[in-house]
Amino acid sequence: MRGARNMEDYGLFLALLGSALLVGFVSVVFSLVWVFSYREGLGWDGGSAEFNWHPVLIVTGFVFIQGIAIIVYRLPWTWKCSKLLMKLIHAGLNTIAMILAIVSMVAVFDYHNARRIPNMYSLHSWIGLTAVIFYSLQLFLGFAIFLLPFAPVPLRAALMPIHVYSGLLIFVTVIASALMGITEKLLFALNSTVYSTSPPEGIFVNCLGLLIVIFGALILWMASRPHWKRPPEENAKVQQPIGGAPEGVEAESTMTDCSNADKSDVGFNSEAARKRNFKLDEAGQRSTM
Amino acid sequence: MRGARNMEDYGLFLALLGSALLVGFVSVVFSLVWVFSYREGLGWDGGSAEFNWHPVLIVTGFVFIQGIAIIVYRLPWTWKCSKLLMKLIHAGLNTIAMILAIVSMVAVFDYHNARRIPNMYSLHSWIGLTAVIFYSLQLFLGFAIFLLPFAPVPLRAALMPIHVYSGLLIFVTVIASALMGITEKLLFALNSTVYSTSPPEGIFVNCLGLLIVIFGALILWMASRPHWKRPPEENAKVQQPIGGAPEGVEAESTMTDCSNADKSDVGFNSEAARKRNFKLDEAGQRSTM
Repeated sequence: MRGARNMEDYGLFLALLGSALLVGFVSVVFSLVWVFSYREGLGWDGGSAEFNWHPVLIVTGFVFIQGIAIIVYRLPWTWKCSKLLMKLIHAGLNTIAMILAIVSMVAVFDYHNARRIPNMYSLHSWIGLTAVIFYSLQLFLGFAIFLLPFAPVPLRAALMPIHVYSGLLIFVTVIASALMGITEKLLFALNSTVYSTSPPEGIFVNCLGLLIVIFGALILWMASRPHWKRPPEENAKVQQPIGGAPEGVEAESTMTDCSNADKSDVGFNSEAARKRNFKLDEAGQRSTM
Repeated sequence: MRGARNMEDYGLFLALLGSALLVGFVSVVFSLVWVFSYREGLGWDGGSAEFNWHPVLIVTGFVFIQGIAIIVYRLPWTWKCSKLLMKLIHAGLNTIAMILAIVSMVAVFDYHNARRIPNMYSLHSWIGLTAVIFYSLQLFLGFAIFLLPFAPVPLRAALMPIHVYSGLLIFVTVIASALMGITEKLLFALNSTVYSTSPPEGIFVNCLGLLIVIFGALILWMASRPHWKRPPEENAKVQQPIGGAPEGVEAESTMTDCSNADKSDVGFNSEAARKRNFKLDEAGQRSTM
Protein backbone atom coordinates (compact mmCIF):
# COMPACT_ATOMS: atom_id res chain seq x y z
CA MET A 1 0.00 0.00 0.00
CA ARG A 2 2.79 2.38 1.05
CA GLY A 3 4.89 1.28 -1.91
CA ALA A 4 2.01 1.80 -4.29
CA ARG A 5 1.43 5.27 -2.90
CA ASN A 6 5.10 6.12 -3.22
CA MET A 7 5.18 4.90 -6.82
CA GLU A 8 2.08 6.95 -7.58
CA ASP A 9 3.70 9.95 -5.93
CA TYR A 10 6.88 9.36 -7.94
CA GLY A 11 4.82 9.22 -11.12
CA LEU A 12 3.13 12.50 -10.21
CA PHE A 13 6.50 14.13 -9.56
CA LEU A 14 7.83 12.92 -12.91
CA ALA A 15 4.68 14.13 -14.69
CA LEU A 16 5.01 17.59 -13.11
CA LEU A 17 8.74 17.73 -13.85
CA GLY A 18 8.14 16.70 -17.46
CA SER A 19 5.41 19.33 -17.78
CA ALA A 20 7.64 22.03 -16.29
CA LEU A 21 10.52 21.14 -18.63
CA LEU A 22 8.17 21.10 -21.61
CA VAL A 23 6.44 24.39 -20.73
CA GLY A 24 9.77 26.04 -19.93
CA PHE A 25 11.34 24.82 -23.17
CA VAL A 26 8.33 25.91 -25.24
CA SER A 27 8.53 29.35 -23.56
CA VAL A 28 12.14 29.70 -24.75
CA VAL A 29 11.11 28.61 -28.27
CA PHE A 30 8.24 31.12 -28.20
CA SER A 31 10.63 33.94 -27.24
CA LEU A 32 12.86 33.00 -30.21
CA VAL A 33 9.92 32.74 -32.62
CA TRP A 34 8.73 36.13 -31.38
CA VAL A 35 12.00 37.93 -32.14
CA PHE A 36 12.72 36.07 -35.41
CA SER A 37 9.22 35.89 -36.93
CA TYR A 38 7.65 39.12 -35.70
CA ARG A 39 10.64 41.33 -34.81
CA GLU A 40 14.14 42.05 -36.10
CA GLY A 41 15.93 38.88 -34.99
CA LEU A 42 19.08 38.98 -32.86
CA GLY A 43 22.20 41.14 -33.21
CA TRP A 44 24.54 43.42 -31.24
CA ASP A 45 24.44 46.71 -33.11
CA GLY A 46 22.60 49.09 -30.80
CA GLY A 47 19.39 48.51 -32.76
CA SER A 48 16.20 46.55 -32.17
CA ALA A 49 18.02 43.24 -32.82
CA GLU A 50 20.18 43.98 -29.79
CA PHE A 51 17.16 44.81 -27.64
CA ASN A 52 15.69 41.45 -28.65
CA TRP A 53 18.33 39.62 -26.61
CA HIS A 54 16.48 40.99 -23.57
CA PRO A 55 13.30 38.87 -23.75
CA VAL A 56 15.17 35.82 -25.08
CA LEU A 57 17.80 35.80 -22.30
CA ILE A 58 15.30 36.66 -19.55
CA VAL A 59 12.98 33.79 -20.53
CA THR A 60 15.91 31.38 -20.99
CA GLY A 61 18.01 32.32 -17.96
CA PHE A 62 16.00 34.26 -15.44
CA VAL A 63 12.80 32.19 -15.81
CA PHE A 64 13.62 28.70 -17.17
CA ILE A 65 17.11 28.05 -15.73
CA GLN A 66 16.28 29.74 -12.41
CA GLY A 67 13.15 27.56 -12.14
CA ILE A 68 15.16 24.37 -12.70
CA ALA A 69 17.82 25.54 -10.21
CA ILE A 70 15.07 25.89 -7.58
CA ILE A 71 13.89 22.28 -7.83
CA VAL A 72 17.22 20.56 -8.51
CA TYR A 73 17.49 19.21 -4.92
CA ARG A 74 14.11 17.52 -5.33
CA LEU A 75 15.04 15.18 -8.18
CA PRO A 76 14.90 11.80 -6.40
CA TRP A 77 17.67 10.23 -8.51
CA THR A 78 20.11 12.84 -7.17
CA TRP A 79 19.50 11.92 -3.52
CA LYS A 80 22.43 9.47 -3.69
CA CYS A 81 24.73 12.23 -4.93
CA SER A 82 26.59 14.24 -2.34
CA LYS A 83 24.95 17.38 -1.01
CA LEU A 84 28.09 19.29 -2.03
CA LEU A 85 27.69 18.23 -5.66
CA MET A 86 24.02 19.27 -5.61
CA LYS A 87 24.91 22.62 -4.06
CA LEU A 88 27.46 23.16 -6.84
CA ILE A 89 24.79 22.37 -9.46
CA HIS A 90 22.26 24.66 -7.70
CA ALA A 91 24.82 27.49 -7.48
CA GLY A 92 26.08 26.84 -11.02
CA LEU A 93 22.63 27.03 -12.60
CA ASN A 94 21.86 30.20 -10.65
CA THR A 95 25.17 31.72 -11.75
CA ILE A 96 24.35 30.99 -15.40
CA ALA A 97 20.90 32.53 -14.90
CA MET A 98 22.45 35.64 -13.30
CA ILE A 99 24.97 36.08 -16.13
CA LEU A 100 22.22 35.78 -18.76
CA ALA A 101 20.06 38.27 -16.83
CA ILE A 102 22.93 40.78 -16.63
CA VAL A 103 23.77 40.40 -20.35
CA SER A 104 20.08 40.88 -21.16
CA MET A 105 20.10 44.13 -19.17
CA VAL A 106 23.26 45.35 -20.89
CA ALA A 107 21.47 44.78 -24.22
CA VAL A 108 18.61 47.08 -23.15
CA PHE A 109 20.85 49.83 -21.74
CA ASP A 110 22.98 49.69 -24.91
CA TYR A 111 19.89 49.92 -27.12
CA HIS A 112 18.42 52.78 -25.06
CA ASN A 113 21.69 54.72 -25.06
CA ALA A 114 22.18 54.28 -28.82
CA ARG A 115 18.66 55.60 -29.43
CA ARG A 116 18.79 58.23 -26.68
CA ILE A 117 15.85 56.62 -24.88
CA PRO A 118 15.95 57.27 -21.09
CA ASN A 119 16.73 54.33 -18.80
CA MET A 120 15.01 53.26 -15.59
CA TYR A 121 11.77 55.23 -15.80
CA SER A 122 9.23 52.40 -15.91
CA LEU A 123 7.86 50.20 -13.12
CA HIS A 124 9.14 47.20 -15.14
CA SER A 125 12.70 48.57 -14.99
CA TRP A 126 12.45 49.41 -11.28
CA ILE A 127 11.19 45.96 -10.29
CA GLY A 128 13.37 44.11 -12.81
CA LEU A 129 16.59 45.80 -11.65
CA THR A 130 15.61 45.25 -7.99
CA ALA A 131 15.12 41.55 -8.78
CA VAL A 132 18.58 41.31 -10.42
CA ILE A 133 20.24 43.04 -7.45
CA PHE A 134 18.50 40.82 -4.87
CA TYR A 135 19.22 37.73 -7.01
CA SER A 136 22.95 38.58 -7.08
CA LEU A 137 22.91 39.21 -3.32
CA GLN A 138 21.09 35.92 -2.74
CA LEU A 139 23.68 34.08 -4.85
CA PHE A 140 26.60 35.73 -3.06
CA LEU A 141 25.18 35.08 0.42
CA GLY A 142 24.17 31.54 -0.51
CA PHE A 143 27.71 30.87 -1.72
CA ALA A 144 29.32 32.37 1.38
CA ILE A 145 27.01 30.77 3.94
CA PHE A 146 25.87 27.42 2.49
CA LEU A 147 28.61 26.43 0.03
CA LEU A 148 31.82 27.61 1.72
CA PRO A 149 32.58 25.59 4.87
CA PHE A 150 33.02 28.52 7.26
CA ALA A 151 29.52 29.42 8.49
CA PRO A 152 28.56 27.70 11.76
CA VAL A 153 25.61 25.29 11.74
CA PRO A 154 23.26 27.48 13.86
CA LEU A 155 23.75 30.38 11.44
CA ARG A 156 22.99 28.13 8.46
CA ALA A 157 19.93 26.79 10.26
CA ALA A 158 18.67 30.28 11.03
CA LEU A 159 19.21 31.58 7.51
CA MET A 160 17.93 28.60 5.47
CA PRO A 161 14.21 29.51 5.75
CA ILE A 162 15.07 33.07 4.67
CA HIS A 163 17.16 31.72 1.75
CA VAL A 164 14.26 29.51 0.59
CA TYR A 165 11.66 32.29 0.99
CA SER A 166 13.86 34.88 -0.76
CA GLY A 167 14.56 32.49 -3.62
CA LEU A 168 10.89 31.84 -4.27
CA LEU A 169 9.97 35.52 -3.82
CA ILE A 170 12.65 36.61 -6.31
CA PHE A 171 11.45 33.92 -8.74
CA VAL A 172 7.82 35.16 -8.69
CA THR A 173 9.01 38.78 -8.86
CA VAL A 174 11.05 37.93 -11.96
CA ILE A 175 7.97 36.36 -13.56
CA ALA A 176 5.84 39.40 -12.68
CA SER A 177 8.55 41.62 -14.17
CA ALA A 178 8.68 39.51 -17.35
CA LEU A 179 4.89 39.89 -17.73
CA MET A 180 5.23 43.68 -17.34
CA GLY A 181 8.03 43.63 -19.90
CA ILE A 182 5.85 41.76 -22.41
CA THR A 183 3.07 44.31 -21.84
CA GLU A 184 5.49 47.21 -22.38
CA LYS A 185 7.13 45.77 -25.49
CA LEU A 186 3.82 44.95 -27.18
CA LEU A 187 2.53 48.47 -26.51
CA PHE A 188 5.79 50.02 -27.81
CA ALA A 189 6.15 47.78 -30.87
CA LEU A 190 2.52 47.45 -31.94
CA ASN A 191 1.10 50.54 -30.16
CA SER A 192 -2.21 50.24 -28.35
CA THR A 193 -4.41 50.69 -31.45
CA VAL A 194 -2.92 47.68 -33.26
CA TYR A 195 -2.57 45.58 -30.08
CA SER A 196 -6.29 46.13 -29.36
CA THR A 197 -7.20 44.47 -32.68
CA SER A 198 -5.61 41.23 -31.37
CA PRO A 199 -3.08 40.74 -34.21
CA PRO A 200 -1.21 37.38 -34.46
CA GLU A 201 1.85 38.81 -32.68
CA GLY A 202 -0.29 40.08 -29.79
CA ILE A 203 -2.02 36.72 -29.31
CA PHE A 204 1.25 34.78 -29.73
CA VAL A 205 3.12 36.84 -27.13
CA ASN A 206 0.15 36.78 -24.72
CA CYS A 207 0.44 32.97 -24.97
CA LEU A 208 4.14 33.27 -24.09
CA GLY A 209 3.05 35.19 -20.97
CA LEU A 210 0.57 32.44 -20.04
CA LEU A 211 3.24 29.75 -20.53
CA ILE A 212 5.57 31.60 -18.15
CA VAL A 213 2.80 31.76 -15.51
CA ILE A 214 2.11 28.01 -15.89
CA PHE A 215 5.86 27.26 -15.63
CA GLY A 216 6.05 29.31 -12.45
CA ALA A 217 3.00 27.58 -10.95
CA LEU A 218 4.51 24.12 -11.64
CA ILE A 219 7.87 25.05 -10.08
CA LEU A 220 6.19 26.56 -7.00
CA TRP A 221 4.09 23.42 -6.47
CA MET A 222 7.11 21.11 -6.77
CA ALA A 223 9.24 23.34 -4.53
CA SER A 224 6.66 23.57 -1.75
CA ARG A 225 5.64 19.90 -1.17
CA PRO A 226 7.34 18.83 2.08
CA HIS A 227 7.35 15.12 1.13
CA TRP A 228 9.36 15.81 -2.04
CA LYS A 229 12.30 17.22 -0.12
CA ARG A 230 15.76 15.71 -0.42
CA PRO A 231 16.28 13.65 2.76
CA PRO A 232 19.24 14.67 4.93
CA GLU A 233 22.40 12.60 4.50
CA GLU A 234 22.93 9.47 6.62
CA ASN A 235 26.61 10.00 7.37
CA ALA A 236 26.05 13.65 8.12
CA LYS A 237 23.52 12.86 10.80
CA VAL A 238 26.12 11.04 12.87
CA GLN A 239 28.16 14.22 13.15
CA GLN A 240 25.23 16.40 14.15
CA PRO A 241 24.29 17.59 17.60
CA ILE A 242 21.03 16.38 19.13
CA GLY A 243 18.02 17.57 17.21
CA GLY A 244 19.34 16.83 13.76
CA ALA A 245 20.47 19.28 11.13
CA PRO A 246 18.26 21.32 8.83
CA GLU A 247 18.31 20.98 5.08
CA GLY A 248 21.41 22.49 3.56
CA VAL A 249 23.11 22.43 6.90
CA GLU A 250 24.47 18.90 7.11
CA ALA A 251 28.20 18.37 7.28
CA GLU A 252 29.35 17.40 3.82
CA SER A 253 29.64 13.74 2.99
CA THR A 254 32.90 12.41 1.63
CA MET A 255 31.27 11.81 -1.77
CA THR A 256 31.94 14.42 -4.40
CA ASP A 257 29.87 12.84 -7.16
CA CYS A 258 27.23 10.17 -7.68
CA SER A 259 29.56 7.51 -9.07
CA ASN A 260 30.59 5.86 -5.83
CA ALA A 261 27.16 5.99 -4.26
CA ASP A 262 25.29 2.74 -3.75
CA LYS A 263 22.24 3.16 -5.92
CA SER A 264 20.75 -0.23 -5.08
CA ASP A 265 18.30 1.16 -2.56
CA VAL A 266 17.37 4.39 -4.27
CA GLY A 267 13.73 4.65 -3.39
CA PHE A 268 11.53 7.65 -3.95
CA ASN A 269 10.34 9.07 -0.70
CA SER A 270 11.35 5.98 1.27
CA GLU A 271 9.89 5.45 4.71
CA ALA A 272 13.32 6.00 6.27
CA ALA A 273 13.78 9.32 4.48
CA ARG A 274 10.25 10.33 5.35
CA LYS A 275 10.85 9.60 9.04
CA ARG A 276 14.11 11.56 9.00
CA ASN A 277 12.31 14.50 7.46
CA PHE A 278 9.65 14.45 10.15
CA LYS A 279 12.29 14.26 12.86
CA LEU A 280 13.72 17.49 11.50
CA ASP A 281 10.31 19.07 11.08
CA GLU A 282 9.77 18.34 14.74
CA ALA A 283 12.96 20.20 15.58
CA GLY A 284 11.41 23.14 13.76
CA GLN A 285 14.56 23.61 11.77
CA ARG A 286 13.65 22.57 8.23
CA SER A 287 12.04 25.25 6.17
CA THR A 288 8.76 24.02 4.81
CA MET A 289 8.00 26.78 2.33
CA MET B 1 14.36 31.33 27.71
CA ARG B 2 11.53 29.76 25.74
CA GLY B 3 9.16 32.45 26.93
CA ALA B 4 11.61 35.15 25.93
CA ARG B 5 11.93 33.64 22.47
CA ASN B 6 8.17 33.40 22.15
CA MET B 7 7.72 37.01 23.18
CA GLU B 8 10.38 38.06 20.67
CA ASP B 9 8.63 36.01 18.02
CA TYR B 10 5.29 37.59 18.98
CA GLY B 11 6.86 41.03 18.67
CA LEU B 12 8.19 40.15 15.23
CA PHE B 13 4.77 38.93 14.13
CA LEU B 14 3.14 42.14 15.37
CA ALA B 15 5.79 44.26 13.65
CA LEU B 16 5.22 42.43 10.34
CA LEU B 17 1.43 42.63 10.71
CA GLY B 18 1.66 46.35 11.49
CA SER B 19 3.92 46.87 8.48
CA ALA B 20 1.57 44.92 6.19
CA LEU B 21 -1.47 46.89 7.40
CA LEU B 22 0.40 50.17 6.95
CA VAL B 23 1.78 49.33 3.50
CA GLY B 24 -1.60 47.96 2.37
CA PHE B 25 -3.44 51.03 3.67
CA VAL B 26 -0.94 53.42 2.07
CA SER B 27 -1.36 51.51 -1.23
CA VAL B 28 -5.11 52.16 -1.12
CA VAL B 29 -4.47 55.85 -0.34
CA PHE B 30 -1.98 56.00 -3.25
CA SER B 31 -4.56 54.55 -5.65
CA LEU B 32 -7.05 57.23 -4.53
CA VAL B 33 -4.49 60.04 -4.80
CA TRP B 34 -3.60 58.77 -8.28
CA VAL B 35 -7.15 58.93 -9.62
CA PHE B 36 -8.07 62.18 -7.83
CA SER B 37 -4.84 64.18 -8.22
CA TYR B 38 -3.57 62.98 -11.59
CA ARG B 39 -6.68 61.54 -13.30
CA GLU B 40 -10.39 62.27 -13.59
CA GLY B 41 -11.54 61.15 -10.12
CA LEU B 42 -14.33 58.60 -9.68
CA GLY B 43 -17.72 58.38 -11.39
CA TRP B 44 -20.04 55.98 -13.20
CA ASP B 45 -20.67 57.63 -16.54
CA GLY B 46 -18.85 55.42 -19.07
CA GLY B 47 -15.91 57.83 -19.05
CA SER B 48 -12.44 57.80 -17.53
CA ALA B 49 -13.85 58.43 -14.04
CA GLU B 50 -15.67 55.09 -14.32
CA PHE B 51 -12.50 53.32 -15.47
CA ASN B 52 -10.73 54.74 -12.41
CA TRP B 53 -12.79 52.49 -10.12
CA HIS B 54 -10.73 49.64 -11.60
CA PRO B 55 -7.34 50.40 -9.98
CA VAL B 56 -8.95 51.66 -6.75
CA LEU B 57 -11.12 48.57 -6.22
CA ILE B 58 -8.40 46.13 -7.29
CA VAL B 59 -5.87 47.59 -4.85
CA THR B 60 -8.49 47.81 -2.07
CA GLY B 61 -10.23 44.47 -2.56
CA PHE B 62 -8.15 42.11 -4.65
CA VAL B 63 -4.80 43.05 -3.09
CA PHE B 64 -5.33 44.52 0.41
CA ILE B 65 -8.44 42.66 1.63
CA GLN B 66 -7.38 39.38 0.00
CA GLY B 67 -3.99 39.68 1.71
CA ILE B 68 -5.59 40.18 5.13
CA ALA B 69 -7.99 37.27 4.47
CA ILE B 70 -4.97 35.02 3.84
CA ILE B 71 -3.34 35.67 7.23
CA VAL B 72 -6.46 35.98 9.38
CA TYR B 73 -6.01 32.50 10.90
CA ARG B 74 -2.54 33.47 12.07
CA LEU B 75 -3.53 36.31 14.37
CA PRO B 76 -2.67 34.80 17.78
CA TRP B 77 -5.46 36.60 19.65
CA THR B 78 -8.03 34.78 17.48
CA TRP B 79 -6.79 31.33 18.47
CA LYS B 80 -9.33 31.26 21.29
CA CYS B 81 -12.15 31.98 18.86
CA SER B 82 -13.90 29.02 17.27
CA LYS B 83 -12.52 27.74 13.99
CA LEU B 84 -16.00 28.18 12.52
CA LEU B 85 -16.00 31.90 13.33
CA MET B 86 -12.54 32.29 11.79
CA LYS B 87 -13.64 30.40 8.66
CA LEU B 88 -16.62 32.77 8.38
CA ILE B 89 -14.29 35.78 8.66
CA HIS B 90 -11.86 34.24 6.10
CA ALA B 91 -14.71 33.48 3.68
CA GLY B 92 -16.37 36.85 4.35
CA LEU B 93 -13.25 38.88 3.59
CA ASN B 94 -12.64 36.85 0.43
CA THR B 95 -16.27 37.37 -0.63
CA ILE B 96 -15.90 41.15 -0.19
CA ALA B 97 -12.65 41.03 -2.21
CA MET B 98 -14.37 39.03 -4.97
CA ILE B 99 -17.30 41.46 -5.18
CA LEU B 100 -14.94 44.45 -5.40
CA ALA B 101 -12.88 42.67 -8.10
CA ILE B 102 -16.01 41.93 -10.13
CA VAL B 103 -17.33 45.51 -9.81
CA SER B 104 -13.89 46.77 -10.87
CA MET B 105 -14.07 44.58 -13.98
CA VAL B 106 -17.57 45.80 -14.80
CA ALA B 107 -16.23 49.37 -14.66
CA VAL B 108 -13.58 48.54 -17.29
CA PHE B 109 -15.95 46.67 -19.64
CA ASP B 110 -18.47 49.51 -19.33
CA TYR B 111 -15.79 52.10 -20.10
CA HIS B 112 -14.45 50.09 -23.05
CA ASN B 113 -17.92 49.51 -24.49
CA ALA B 114 -18.88 53.20 -24.15
CA ARG B 115 -15.70 54.18 -26.01
CA ARG B 116 -15.80 51.26 -28.48
CA ILE B 117 -12.43 49.99 -27.20
CA PRO B 118 -12.07 46.21 -27.66
CA ASN B 119 -12.10 44.04 -24.55
CA MET B 120 -9.80 41.19 -23.57
CA TYR B 121 -6.94 41.69 -26.01
CA SER B 122 -4.07 42.33 -23.57
CA LEU B 123 -2.02 39.91 -21.47
CA HIS B 124 -3.18 41.91 -18.41
CA SER B 125 -6.82 41.20 -19.26
CA TRP B 126 -6.15 37.49 -19.95
CA ILE B 127 -4.31 36.92 -16.67
CA GLY B 128 -6.56 39.23 -14.64
CA LEU B 129 -9.77 37.53 -15.80
CA THR B 130 -8.21 34.09 -15.22
CA ALA B 131 -7.35 35.18 -11.67
CA VAL B 132 -10.93 36.34 -11.01
CA ILE B 133 -12.36 33.06 -12.35
CA PHE B 134 -9.98 30.90 -10.28
CA TYR B 135 -10.59 33.10 -7.23
CA SER B 136 -14.35 32.61 -7.53
CA LEU B 137 -13.86 28.86 -7.99
CA GLN B 138 -11.53 28.75 -4.97
CA LEU B 139 -14.12 30.61 -2.88
CA PHE B 140 -16.96 28.32 -4.00
CA LEU B 141 -14.96 25.11 -3.41
CA GLY B 142 -13.62 26.41 -0.10
CA PHE B 143 -17.17 27.16 1.03
CA ALA B 144 -18.49 23.76 -0.09
CA ILE B 145 -15.64 21.67 1.30
CA PHE B 146 -14.28 23.47 4.37
CA LEU B 147 -17.18 25.59 5.63
CA LEU B 148 -20.24 23.41 5.02
CA PRO B 149 -20.26 20.33 7.28
CA PHE B 150 -20.74 17.71 4.54
CA ALA B 151 -17.25 16.92 3.20
CA PRO B 152 -15.59 13.94 4.92
CA VAL B 153 -12.37 14.54 6.89
CA PRO B 154 -10.07 12.62 4.47
CA LEU B 155 -11.30 14.72 1.55
CA ARG B 156 -10.68 17.94 3.52
CA ALA B 157 -7.23 16.70 4.51
CA ALA B 158 -6.37 15.85 0.90
CA LEU B 159 -7.60 19.17 -0.47
CA MET B 160 -6.24 21.56 2.20
CA PRO B 161 -2.68 21.74 0.76
CA ILE B 162 -4.17 22.45 -2.68
CA HIS B 163 -6.46 25.14 -1.18
CA VAL B 164 -3.48 26.84 0.53
CA TYR B 165 -1.26 26.60 -2.57
CA SER B 166 -4.02 27.86 -4.90
CA GLY B 167 -4.80 30.74 -2.56
CA LEU B 168 -1.21 31.94 -2.48
CA LEU B 169 -0.76 31.38 -6.22
CA ILE B 170 -3.88 33.40 -7.02
CA PHE B 171 -2.69 36.16 -4.66
CA VAL B 172 0.70 36.51 -6.40
CA THR B 173 -0.99 36.29 -9.82
CA VAL B 174 -3.32 39.13 -8.83
CA ILE B 175 -0.32 41.24 -7.79
CA ALA B 176 1.48 40.46 -11.08
CA SER B 177 -1.69 41.41 -12.95
CA ALA B 178 -1.99 44.67 -10.99
CA LEU B 179 1.61 45.55 -11.93
CA MET B 180 0.83 44.87 -15.61
CA GLY B 181 -2.30 47.02 -15.26
CA ILE B 182 -0.26 49.91 -13.84
CA THR B 183 2.20 49.57 -16.74
CA GLU B 184 -0.64 49.59 -19.29
CA LYS B 185 -2.51 52.52 -17.76
CA LEU B 186 0.61 54.71 -17.52
CA LEU B 187 1.49 53.99 -21.16
CA PHE B 188 -2.10 54.71 -22.28
CA ALA B 189 -2.58 57.82 -20.14
CA LEU B 190 0.87 59.41 -20.40
CA ASN B 191 2.10 57.67 -23.58
CA SER B 192 5.64 56.34 -23.67
CA THR B 193 7.28 59.67 -24.57
CA VAL B 194 5.98 61.44 -21.47
CA TYR B 195 6.39 58.38 -19.20
CA SER B 196 10.06 58.15 -20.23
CA THR B 197 10.68 61.68 -18.87
CA SER B 198 9.76 60.38 -15.37
CA PRO B 199 6.94 62.88 -14.66
CA PRO B 200 5.53 63.08 -11.10
CA GLU B 201 2.58 60.80 -12.00
CA GLY B 202 4.94 58.14 -13.40
CA ILE B 203 7.15 58.15 -10.31
CA PHE B 204 4.16 58.24 -7.94
CA VAL B 205 2.41 55.28 -9.59
CA ASN B 206 5.67 53.31 -9.86
CA CYS B 207 5.88 53.75 -6.06
CA LEU B 208 2.34 52.35 -5.78
CA GLY B 209 3.59 49.30 -7.68
CA LEU B 210 6.52 48.89 -5.29
CA LEU B 211 4.21 49.21 -2.27
CA ILE B 212 2.02 46.41 -3.66
CA VAL B 213 5.08 44.17 -4.09
CA ILE B 214 6.22 44.89 -0.51
CA PHE B 215 2.70 44.17 0.80
CA GLY B 216 2.68 40.85 -1.07
CA ALA B 217 6.13 39.91 0.26
CA LEU B 218 5.03 40.61 3.88
CA ILE B 219 1.83 38.56 3.52
CA LEU B 220 3.72 35.63 1.92
CA TRP B 221 6.28 35.60 4.75
CA MET B 222 3.61 35.63 7.45
CA ALA B 223 1.54 32.99 5.65
CA SER B 224 4.44 30.58 5.18
CA ARG B 225 6.04 30.39 8.65
CA PRO B 226 5.00 27.00 10.10
CA HIS B 227 5.36 28.16 13.72
CA TRP B 228 2.85 30.98 13.22
CA LYS B 229 0.06 28.60 12.33
CA ARG B 230 -3.17 28.50 14.29
CA PRO B 231 -2.95 25.43 16.56
CA PRO B 232 -5.70 22.83 16.13
CA GLU B 233 -8.56 23.02 18.62
CA GLU B 234 -8.37 21.18 21.93
CA ASN B 235 -11.95 19.96 22.05
CA ALA B 236 -11.84 19.03 18.39
CA LYS B 237 -8.91 16.73 18.95
CA VAL B 238 -10.94 14.54 21.30
CA GLN B 239 -13.33 13.75 18.48
CA GLN B 240 -10.59 12.95 16.00
CA PRO B 241 -9.26 9.57 14.95
CA ILE B 242 -5.69 8.69 15.87
CA GLY B 243 -3.17 10.91 14.16
CA GLY B 244 -4.96 14.16 14.75
CA ALA B 245 -6.79 16.33 12.26
CA PRO B 246 -5.20 18.64 9.74
CA GLU B 247 -5.73 22.37 9.75
CA GLY B 248 -9.17 23.33 8.63
CA VAL B 249 -10.31 19.78 9.16
CA GLU B 250 -11.14 19.71 12.84
CA ALA B 251 -14.67 19.10 13.94
CA GLU B 252 -16.14 22.46 14.90
CA SER B 253 -16.02 23.50 18.51
CA THR B 254 -19.22 24.47 20.26
CA MET B 255 -18.07 28.10 20.45
CA THR B 256 -19.46 30.41 17.83
CA ASP B 257 -17.59 33.50 18.96
CA CYS B 258 -14.70 34.57 21.15
CA SER B 259 -16.82 35.84 24.04
CA ASN B 260 -17.06 32.64 26.07
CA ALA B 261 -13.48 31.59 25.52
CA ASP B 262 -11.12 31.60 28.46
CA LYS B 263 -8.54 34.16 27.45
CA SER B 264 -6.45 33.82 30.57
CA ASP B 265 -3.92 31.49 29.00
CA VAL B 266 -3.77 32.97 25.54
CA GLY B 267 -0.10 32.58 24.75
CA PHE B 268 1.56 33.14 21.45
CA ASN B 269 2.96 29.98 20.03
CA SER B 270 2.70 28.11 23.34
CA GLU B 271 4.68 24.95 23.81
CA ALA B 272 1.46 22.92 23.90
CA ALA B 273 0.27 24.40 20.62
CA ARG B 274 3.70 23.91 19.11
CA LYS B 275 3.70 20.25 20.10
CA ARG B 276 0.24 19.72 18.66
CA ASN B 277 1.40 21.27 15.39
CA PHE B 278 4.39 18.96 15.19
CA LYS B 279 2.21 15.94 15.94
CA LEU B 280 0.21 16.83 12.87
CA ASP B 281 3.29 17.59 10.81
CA GLU B 282 4.45 14.10 11.65
CA ALA B 283 1.19 12.73 10.33
CA GLY B 284 2.04 14.52 7.10
CA GLN B 285 -1.37 16.08 7.02
CA ARG B 286 -0.81 19.76 7.69
CA SER B 287 0.07 21.85 4.70
CA THR B 288 3.35 23.61 5.26
CA MET B 289 3.33 26.01 2.33
